[in-house]
Amino acid sequence: MPTVLFAAPERLWPSYEPALAAAFAEAGLSVTMAGPRTAPAEVDYLIYAPNGPVSDFTPFTRARAVLSLWAGVERIVGNATLTQPLCRMVDAGLREGMVEWVTGHVLRSHLGIDRWLGAQDGIWRNGETPPLARDRQVVVLGLGELGAACAAMLGTLNFRVTGWSRSPKSLAGIDCLSGPEGLKAALARAEILVTVLPHTPETENVIDAAALARMPRGAVILNPGRGTLIDDAALLEALETGHVAQATLDVFRTEPLPPDHPYWAHPRVTVTPHIAADTRPASAARIIAENIRRGEAGEPFLYLVDRGRGY
Amino acid sequence: MPTVLFAAPERLWPSYEPALAAAFAEAGLSVTMAGPRTAPAEVDYLIYAPNGPVSDFTPFTRARAVLSLWAGVERIVGNATLTQPLCRMVDAGLREGMVEWVTGHVLRSHLGIDRWLGAQDGIWRNGETPPLARDRQVVVLGLGELGAACAAMLGTLNFRVTGWSRSPKSLAGIDCLSGPEGLKAALARAEILVTVLPHTPETENVIDAAALARMPRGAVILNPGRGTLIDDAALLEALETGHVAQATLDVFRTEPLPPDHPYWAHPRVTVTPHIAADTRPASAARIIAENIRRGEAGEPFLYLVDRGRGY
Repeated sequence: MPTVLFAAPERLWPSYEPALAAAFAEAGLSVTMAGPRTAPAEVDYLIYAPNGPVSDFTPFTRARAVLSLWAGVERIVGNATLTQPLCRMVDAGLREGMVEWVTGHVLRSHLGIDRWLGAQDGIWRNGETPPLARDRQVVVLGLGELGAACAAMLGTLNFRVTGWSRSPKSLAGIDCLSGPEGLKAALARAEILVTVLPHTPETENVIDAAALARMPRGAVILNPGRGTLIDDAALLEALETGHVAQATLDVFRTEPLPPDHPYWAHPRVTVTPHIAADTRPASAARIIAENIRRGEAGEPFLYLVDRGRGY
Repeated sequence: MPTVLFAAPERLWPSYEPALAAAFAEAGLSVTMAGPRTAPAEVDYLIYAPNGPVSDFTPFTRARAVLSLWAGVERIVGNATLTQPLCRMVDAGLREGMVEWVTGHVLRSHLGIDRWLGAQDGIWRNGETPPLARDRQVVVLGLGELGAACAAMLGTLNFRVTGWSRSPKSLAGIDCLSGPEGLKAALARAEILVTVLPHTPETENVIDAAALARMPRGAVILNPGRGTLIDDAALLEALETGHVAQATLDVFRTEPLPPDHPYWAHPRVTVTPHIAADTRPASAARIIAENIRRGEAGEPFLYLVDRGRGY
């Protein structure tokens, strides 16, 4: 029965304890979790995240692998004491969470759910049926793995989806535009705009006053991408004039978003705290369990880090 | 150029005028809409709904068809003055609207959108990431055309979907249960319950106190099916105790729901005014345009009513 040490910050344990127990059971694994009196030399696997109890891996003489909870391993890969195999996290939950956040908030805007929540006053407003998704234009900026997955799901839901990327791409069922002229055309049809671009010098403030002015009046903006994509002052101004009807923002230039930031108080802004694409204990625990199963079965580990490349 | 009379209640005209114009343009049709001075004998097609200006079809000597806006034609099919071909509405929008309403409100519950809307207070709560859809049990009661379409879309979104129907059914990717014992098992796993059953003597109050008690504590109920499916007093009681966390209801025993009904005032009930599966002007107008195109081209009409059968 392998012994596993949870070498991540203690605050993560309450959510990982049940997730790991469920994942080990699902994988048919019997595992002993290391306690305070377990000697490092008795540990077979370490579940690792930065800022946890372990920074010197030398005493873990028996450890068969260090299993990172994070996708990025830049804070551990250079650790000279780490001689054991290191596996990074590749969490399908990250992509799935992003698709669910985007789909849920697009449907929230599409169906006017906020309006219904604010109309519980005894007045039966049944002339106000929203249009169908097939008559609603949604634009996704950014067609990397996450953006493409969001665009595909919105297409499955019947929305008229336009995707934009810097260089030309082709995706089934999506009207794909690219380049600076394509961006102007995409913005002009964006009843609902979803920004899933990475942060690069070119994408900084891509949604500025000029871009906002190109969007149809009453547009809705969803930003689960990067805080730097949006010129915050320009967005607040467009919300003031009503040109932008609503914004739901998950990422910000400064996180946590300061308590006195105008986004918090704005009646037509919804702040979510960088949760759209979070590592989920349930799905991360399944990856950990699978790698322990592989280690015990003598099979190659998933997502083994190449120390030379650094990832 | 055919002359078309909008013979439906006047209140529908503001939404149908742009929808018809768009659909006619899309179909490449040039159409003259009949005005107050158009003689009945000049009309080629009537767009019809009950309680509109036309009840005697005798003067419409040239009319090639009467095109109903509604699926149900029971209020016109027996009209002895109607000798023209009658077409009923078969609106894909009805199914699509239902799928969108159900998917949107399931994601709203799943993501805890109401909770985020109520948490715009400057506090960054990023420990509260919801589980992924793959870890959320959604149960759909009723697997007719609408229920099956909802269950399929929820499955595509990765939810763990259980479907229940009176007699056994089999649907790809859905765990299908049936019969009274299957219903008990389905309710026991319903974190989110969607009721899309028809109204029959067997489904009356299918969600009663006993059924609610079988559901997990904190369950959410969505009813876009029929108002009679739910024992209203039992649901209000379960909301009071917190056993049911939230209910979103689109259909009611009495519609419009009376202004003093406790559902309107309950903080954990959302009322929508029977809009989940509504005929949409945009999609209905496309069916109307297609039938006028067919009439002009000498092709057979879609959805022609058989007067003998009555539908």
